Amino acid sequence: MDLRSIENIVSLCKRRGFIFQSSEIYGGMGSTWDYGPLGVEMKKRIKDSWWQYMVTGRENVVGMDAAIFMLPEVWEASGHVNNFHDPLVDNRRSKKRYRLDHLLGEQKDRILKDLGERLFPEPRDFSDREQEIQALTATLYDQRESGGQLLHDAGIRDPYSGEVGDWTNPRQFNLMFKTAIGPVEDSGDITYLRPETAQGIFVNFSNVQTTSRQKLPFGIAQMGKAFRNEITTGNFLFRTREFEQMEMEFFIHDDERSRWLEYWSQERLSWFVDLGISPEKLRLRPHDQDELAHYSSACYDVEYEFPFGWSELEGIADRGTYDLDQHNAHSSKKQTYFDPQRNAHIVPSVIETSAGVDRAFLTCLVDAYAEEEVRGEKRVVLKLSPAVAPITCAVFPLVSKGDQAERAQAIARDLRREFSSFYDAGGSIGKRYRRQDEAGTPFGLTVDHQTMEDGTVTLRDRDTMDQIRIPAEGARDEIRSRLHS
Amino acid sequence: MDLRSIENIVSLCKRRGFIFQSSEIYGGMGSTWDYGPLGVEMKKRIKDSWWQYMVTGRENVVGMDAAIFMLPEVWEASGHVNNFHDPLVDNRRSKKRYRLDHLLGEQKDRILKDLGERLFPEPRDFSDREQEIQALTATLYDQRESGGQLLHDAGIRDPYSGEVGDWTNPRQFNLMFKTAIGPVEDSGDITYLRPETAQGIFVNFSNVQTTSRQKLPFGIAQMGKAFRNEITTGNFLFRTREFEQMEMEFFIHDDERSRWLEYWSQERLSWFVDLGISPEKLRLRPHDQDELAHYSSACYDVEYEFPFGWSELEGIADRGTYDLDQHNAHSSKKQTYFDPQRNAHIVPSVIETSAGVDRAFLTCLVDAYAEEEVRGEKRVVLKLSPAVAPITCAVFPLVSKGDQAERAQAIARDLRREFSSFYDAGGSIGKRYRRQDEAGTPFGLTVDHQTMEDGTVTLRDRDTMDQIRIPAEGARDEIRSRLHS
Repeated sequence: MDLRSIENIVSLCKRRGFIFQSSEIYGGMGSTWDYGPLGVEMKKRIKDSWWQYMVTGRENVVGMDAAIFMLPEVWEASGHVNNFHDPLVDNRRSKKRYRLDHLLGEQKDRILKDLGERLFPEPRDFSDREQEIQALTATLYDQRESGGQLLHDAGIRDPYSGEVGDWTNPRQFNLMFKTAIGPVEDSGDITYLRPETAQGIFVNFSNVQTTSRQKLPFGIAQMGKAFRNEITTGNFLFRTREFEQMEMEFFIHDDERSRWLEYWSQERLSWFVDLGISPEKLRLRPHDQDELAHYSSACYDVEYEFPFGWSELEGIADRGTYDLDQHNAHSSKKQTYFDPQRNAHIVPSVIETSAGVDRAFLTCLVDAYAEEEVRGEKRVVLKLSPAVAPITCAVFPLVSKGDQAERAQAIARDLRREFSSFYDAGGSIGKRYRRQDEAGTPFGLTVDHQTMEDGTVTLRDRDTMDQIRIPAEGARDEIRSRLHS
Repeated sequence: MDLRSIENIVSLCKRRGFIFQSSEIYGGMGSTWDYGPLGVEMKKRIKDSWWQYMVTGRENVVGMDAAIFMLPEVWEASGHVNNFHDPLVDNRRSKKRYRLDHLLGEQKDRILKDLGERLFPEPRDFSDREQEIQALTATLYDQRESGGQLLHDAGIRDPYSGEVGDWTNPRQFNLMFKTAIGPVEDSGDITYLRPETAQGIFVNFSNVQTTSRQKLPFGIAQMGKAFRNEITTGNFLFRTREFEQMEMEFFIHDDERSRWLEYWSQERLSWFVDLGISPEKLRLRPHDQDELAHYSSACYDVEYEFPFGWSELEGIADRGTYDLDQHNAHSSKKQTYFDPQRNAHIVPSVIETSAGVDRAFLTCLVDAYAEEEVRGEKRVVLKLSPAVAPITCAVFPLVSKGDQAERAQAIARDLRREFSSFYDAGGSIGKRYRRQDEAGTPFGLTVDHQTMEDGTVTLRDRDTMDQIRIPAEGARDEIRSRLHS
């Protein structure tokens, strides 16, 4: 079994207060997660790191933060109302509903081959099962009038009942959450929860460019919640219906698209390395030609090797002028840029970087998780980078009451002025070390009887478990220098 | 006219990139606002300040971050499904809908008195118009069967048509936004967008307490978006349907309620003073007995004197054991605390502090806004505290090209390592100063011909407009010392 299996991580997250299931006391809401005391601190460090790397540290990127609610016209122009769909089929007999490509994924090869023979006139190469499923899904959806019958005739089984289903024809299911806004409950104005933060940037392009007085090339970055009514969620935080994005749209001249795509792909990969993720588990995967949208010349995914396989952390995409063109066609206010060199208004091209906060968070946990044997006992430790660890330093009195405890509390208070620190006097010292190992706390300071005599404390390193004595007074300096080494 | 009138602030916000209207290019979404490049930075400083003040800087408060989606059972237990309503009436003739108390607010005194005579058997004192409207609204709602007729008979006019309306009986309108989750579009599981972040804390009480190992008294704090389908919005960021909360629930023994209510009321007032808000425009207002919920012994509001009157920034409320009791009655997992002193499981009492990020943001702007006459010209300046100002220091070359520009850019880059800095070479130096005054930038550094000779720059103070020469090399030290003075 892979030690970093997701189940172990879920369990650690609940045990230590990183992540709890939403509404757990009412039975739990599927694929919806709450960040606990350690989780919220680690998430904040990841977000702050992104903002510093992408916005504060750069002269040519500015931030913004659009509302989650937008007028539905935005999503009509962007194409989300018409095109943001999954194909679904129902089994009339079991009343179960499936995403068509996932249903096909559950079938035996021979049944898929049978279906292929019914759908395609020519014999086909079946070497890539995933690719074949995508082709079958697309073709079935094109044959909407008879798709259900074809599924039945090919013997497609319902994974729930195990029997060949009485399938409906495939239909589209929009992934945007709808709600009604305003005082009229039944016939209120429909609006959507945004399925991405990016459109908040595109519809504000002129406002931001004019007020920030940026010139091409420049970027607009944003973090915030987005919502997709996914049919299939799972792998813990990896795919959820509510999630947080970190997106940046970089506006450029058309002839610089490939240069900036390369630049941002490398930059975004570097950021994950800066978070402390193992470089050998990260890769940049260029999209195949058939994965690209019609307006896109190229895309990269930053991928990480999870226990469930290589999976996307972030997309870096050449979006050309597509989004601004769409809004210019649908709205009366033109989103253009006055180019002083050409002395003309132009529609800039765009390189987009789109990452997920929750996925970055999960990646940090998975990458840091380790089980080790220490003196015959199992130790679970999160080898988090100090840059993202929720607690930088824990302080323990060897004796939980009296002058050792008071001294330890004073040290914790002093550390708190500069770092995140935690005072813990509960249980044996070994138990306290193990708890902080599981919390990913890189440093531990122990106050003992010797502290009361010579003013030194023990500094324990989480990863090596080495302990050295240092003067308590110098603890802040020592930790600061280790953080920046 | 009040110089700080909201219209001036809205205009400044758009002009400088603090706030834009949502979906503006499609006509604008009412009462929904996007934070621009300056706005997002200032909002981040306000949130970071709250987190530092409430969580990081305290040993006995931990943070969390629950999802916006929760199971509907949470809102049934909390009382929001049954009680979170506004009373509405429709005029059948004009098809217009009104919140009943707001409709009554639009009527002449003599009509309200007529309505009062029909509703109440005894003659009444009509000295407090607002109080009378609330009494009429409550009584009309209790007489749901005949309320519409009573409104008509008393001559209640429709503000839209000016005529006496053909009123429906009052009915309740729930303020929670609904949406359907899961793959079934028409009959999906209904869920709500949370109308407050607080319940995310209550349903996680045991999870957080157990994993953080906190003992009473201790607090759980959270920031995040909440949504209320308000009938009446307005005053710019003051009342919007989508807003961000900063809430903390402080769990205590029952006999310490009044002590902690006083403590947190003072603490929360102090935080607003720390943000740089004028203390004389802030006050703590104790709630009258008839404003209190049945479970509450006392509440305070932190109020600010806006151009539109004294208004609530934050509520500090004694909630007793109400919320945990509700969840304990509705869920199978008990939210209790093992009290070692009493050797028993108890339900802790709660003091809640509930503030709005957007209101704090608006307050900073309103409080900082000033118009001054400088040498015969009007100067608009935001006298923001450096702690919240989006840009700490702007750097200007007197000549926008060549070696002065290069030197100024190098200085801006150096400052950026420690502060938020902005390089601006566009337009006359006076124009650039004015732009930064409007952005609330406390310090400006100007590079001129003398800089190239002796290495000194001009440091300009936003509020006094005094300029002194300092060595460019010492600029970071000088700004740091002014920030902390």
